[in-house]
Amino acid sequence: MNSIDDYHKRFFGGYRLFDAASGFLLNYAGASGFDREKAVRRDKKLIAAALDFSRRIEAGEPVNASEGRRVDHFNLRKGAGLKKSLAQWEAIKAAIGEIREGRVVNEAGARYTDVIVNGIGGSFLGPLMLLIAKHGADYNFGRGLPIRMHFACNTDPEGFHMLIRKLDLPTTIMVNISKSGGTAETAGNMEALNALLSAGGLEPGRHNITVTTPGSPFDRESREKGFMHVFHMNVETGGRTSVGSAVGMVPAAFAGIDFAAFLRGQAHMDALTRKPDAVENPAMLLTLVINDQIRREGHKNQIVLGYSDSLKETAHYFQQLFMESLGKRLSITGRRLKAPTGLTIFGGVGTGEQHAFMQQIQEGISDSFVHFISFRSRTADFSNNKAGSMGRQLLAFVEGTQKALLGNGREFVSLAFERQDEFNMGMLVALEERVVAFLGGMWGINPFDQPGVQAGKLSADNHNRLSKAVVDRVAKGGFRGTAAEMAAEIGADEADAPGIESILLDIVANHAVSGSYPGQEKCRCAAKWDGAGFGFSIRA
Amino acid sequence: MNSIDDYHKRFFGGYRLFDAASGFLLNYAGASGFDREKAVRRDKKLIAAALDFSRRIEAGEPVNASEGRRVDHFNLRKGAGLKKSLAQWEAIKAAIGEIREGRVVNEAGARYTDVIVNGIGGSFLGPLMLLIAKHGADYNFGRGLPIRMHFACNTDPEGFHMLIRKLDLPTTIMVNISKSGGTAETAGNMEALNALLSAGGLEPGRHNITVTTPGSPFDRESREKGFMHVFHMNVETGGRTSVGSAVGMVPAAFAGIDFAAFLRGQAHMDALTRKPDAVENPAMLLTLVINDQIRREGHKNQIVLGYSDSLKETAHYFQQLFMESLGKRLSITGRRLKAPTGLTIFGGVGTGEQHAFMQQIQEGISDSFVHFISFRSRTADFSNNKAGSMGRQLLAFVEGTQKALLGNGREFVSLAFERQDEFNMGMLVALEERVVAFLGGMWGINPFDQPGVQAGKLSADNHNRLSKAVVDRVAKGGFRGTAAEMAAEIGADEADAPGIESILLDIVANHAVSGSYPGQEKCRCAAKWDGAGFGFSIRA
Repeated sequence: MNSIDDYHKRFFGGYRLFDAASGFLLNYAGASGFDREKAVRRDKKLIAAALDFSRRIEAGEPVNASEGRRVDHFNLRKGAGLKKSLAQWEAIKAAIGEIREGRVVNEAGARYTDVIVNGIGGSFLGPLMLLIAKHGADYNFGRGLPIRMHFACNTDPEGFHMLIRKLDLPTTIMVNISKSGGTAETAGNMEALNALLSAGGLEPGRHNITVTTPGSPFDRESREKGFMHVFHMNVETGGRTSVGSAVGMVPAAFAGIDFAAFLRGQAHMDALTRKPDAVENPAMLLTLVINDQIRREGHKNQIVLGYSDSLKETAHYFQQLFMESLGKRLSITGRRLKAPTGLTIFGGVGTGEQHAFMQQIQEGISDSFVHFISFRSRTADFSNNKAGSMGRQLLAFVEGTQKALLGNGREFVSLAFERQDEFNMGMLVALEERVVAFLGGMWGINPFDQPGVQAGKLSADNHNRLSKAVVDRVAKGGFRGTAAEMAAEIGADEADAPGIESILLDIVANHAVSGSYPGQEKCRCAAKWDGAGFGFSIRA
Repeated sequence: MNSIDDYHKRFFGGYRLFDAASGFLLNYAGASGFDREKAVRRDKKLIAAALDFSRRIEAGEPVNASEGRRVDHFNLRKGAGLKKSLAQWEAIKAAIGEIREGRVVNEAGARYTDVIVNGIGGSFLGPLMLLIAKHGADYNFGRGLPIRMHFACNTDPEGFHMLIRKLDLPTTIMVNISKSGGTAETAGNMEALNALLSAGGLEPGRHNITVTTPGSPFDRESREKGFMHVFHMNVETGGRTSVGSAVGMVPAAFAGIDFAAFLRGQAHMDALTRKPDAVENPAMLLTLVINDQIRREGHKNQIVLGYSDSLKETAHYFQQLFMESLGKRLSITGRRLKAPTGLTIFGGVGTGEQHAFMQQIQEGISDSFVHFISFRSRTADFSNNKAGSMGRQLLAFVEGTQKALLGNGREFVSLAFERQDEFNMGMLVALEERVVAFLGGMWGINPFDQPGVQAGKLSADNHNRLSKAVVDRVAKGGFRGTAAEMAAEIGADEADAPGIESILLDIVANHAVSGSYPGQEKCRCAAKWDGAGFGFSIRA
């Protein structure tokens, strides 16, 4: 009995966990690597800390300590929370169905054709991951998607322009996702779209849907402006774990995704990862492996390699989930850590990525381990001379790559799911969410805040203030001089000279002091950059 | 004069290089970091080795020593090589133009509507990068692209199926890109498509174009089968540096890309990076910074962050270029290195990625430096309350993030180009190609082979042989027993038991012993997996 486990132990130095109910198989391999039994003995306290932190999250304690908040993503799919989530999903599905199926129409009585999901970070990565998992990376091409979907997930005017000029605005809806409405990118995209709608004689209210927290400024603004719908997420739901909330539901409803199955898949995995026995708990096995990698080898890169085109944005999603959660310099109690923490995640789709980074992984610097994801059963297959079928060729690349890694003394973790569907995507996401919670508990950090992101935002706001001052100065009769002289003229610090230079360069390059669309109104001033000397001549 | 350079030195600890002809600006910053003058003195020999290696590449010496080959990508855009490349581009543009504009039609006289680019690794990443740079990530949506484009860049039957069922095969062309035709993924995709075409009564010859090396088996096969066109790349052109060859040209011709400008941009940058003065050469400055990062901090991750939606796949492209080229355990003369080499690259599009990994970069483990890419002038902009314009908001995030990095003691390199077009994309690609050549020369490795990728392929081939033996055994009257027993029955090594298990699991999950399409013919055998015991019962 279990002899294949013995073979895995003998030839792969590995451990396996199998969930018969779902067909989920976790497989760790590494000939000279991690010893589970030793880790369970040695890391007893860490394991207890991880389990306790996870328990406290689900008990509703304020585990996001720096912000004094509870964190509810596990509870959104558990017991009464799951019931409430399923009810919200039914309500959203019904409301969006009215639009999708053309029972709710625009001012002119036409059905809506396009949806722009306007959000950044978690408000973008989760919906995009699920959309691609269902409809492929080229989701707007051909049959399949009930309504075309687009993403505004940046503040890039070129990208926004490229999208806008292809759309028919009268039949376009924007779904604005922001907890407060204060996110600069999301607010800016909405502002730009609504200016265009108004300029075209359209009512912004009939072209906007909002997902926000109840009672937020954005909630009030959306209601005042008569937006089609305002759906709510909880203030306790963090951006990078928001995919199970209305943030994921509204795009999913447009895309015809079975979101109830996604939530049930999350709940199924949550039950497995709640097991107190470290040997039986797949998230704990993964956590111990990661922790061991970092301990034995110094910090580590984890490569997420999904052997399915449907996982095109999945590594990207996990990149945010892990790096934003685990890259910290303060402990959860706000003390400076002896050493900053973190785990770098990148990856993509196999077999393609084998040609991108596998050379270095196999033979170059040994700073990473691979996290394979694959699906066992296929809905289609094709004859293939070399392997019997295309699917079996894919399997050969998964197995062959793993074997080559072992031969090179590398370690890996492999997750195999029965099939690629919403239930199993839910399982995958929930597994990784639990690993992040466990690592947070083990390391004594707060995985639910992101002070380092705020630093960049504040710095950007300072730059915006500088930008306005420079533009005002230029607009008042032009300017001739260096960036340092401009700093003096507007009363800025001389340390701001490089920043001011970038603003002057921007005015020169674009012959414009303000954005305007349509019409591309140019700046009234002629602008010139004396490149060599980094001086400026700008005149009215 | 040059006072702004002084400010940069003083406040950013930085260096700047500016090319007035193109507007290209390279900016290194890091308060406590790299000292260029010291590096130029200290690394004199390394610099000489890098310049010499680069010179030998362009002189046509067999710098791909392990394979005994010259490497020609720099020469494809230099002097007579550029002339030849431009002539090939004109010929390809004319031939593809006939198809695109409907003067060449299919068997039934209809114009072609869709093109599948079938290639993997460099045959995929370069064309996709340029396509997105020109037409955005959702390139098939709306006006813009003259013909719809798709990519088969894997051996995933689900992904291939999703694509195929959306296409109208009678008006579809596949562009098969492979130096020899032996790449399993590419060969398999072509085999699958052509089986479908033949089954549908269509002539494969009228639906295939090949890019391969002259006289290769694939060259002969393509001519024998009467493919529409066979275009040639040189055997000296490596996959990951093939974007300037016919590999890049054919997709570019379908996509309406100005490839001549791309080549000219490469040539322009090549001239800058050929400068022997280390202080004047932007690729050498970048190389010295990277080398210094690795020396001072141990191995390093380099994050490529492009502040433009058009750069969606650019970091991915550089990931292959750097990691496959630089992740080595052998020296160029075939000796085992004291320590394996490598440089990990990942990244994406800002501002989005700020929400993905900037928390860790700013405050977590310090194992990376950021490589910013941005474009100065915009073709469109939008009003924005907060920043004046959407474009200036983007600039504020670039500058703000850089300033926050400096505040946290991090280092970065910033590349600013005048505008996002083919010329500047050519400059960007050529710059990074030269950095790879310089690092290869400095480290004494061969950046042009990839033995570690071959290891995985061989291992996959072994798995395919096992797979066929298992399938044959199952097809002969079924099988009941464990994977280890199957190993014994087919005369395989007992170490193959885990691999055999995965094959048996695959048969069970798919109820199929061979691929077949259309029709999805099922296996004649009922299959069952006694999950708990990892034993198998499969009967006819």
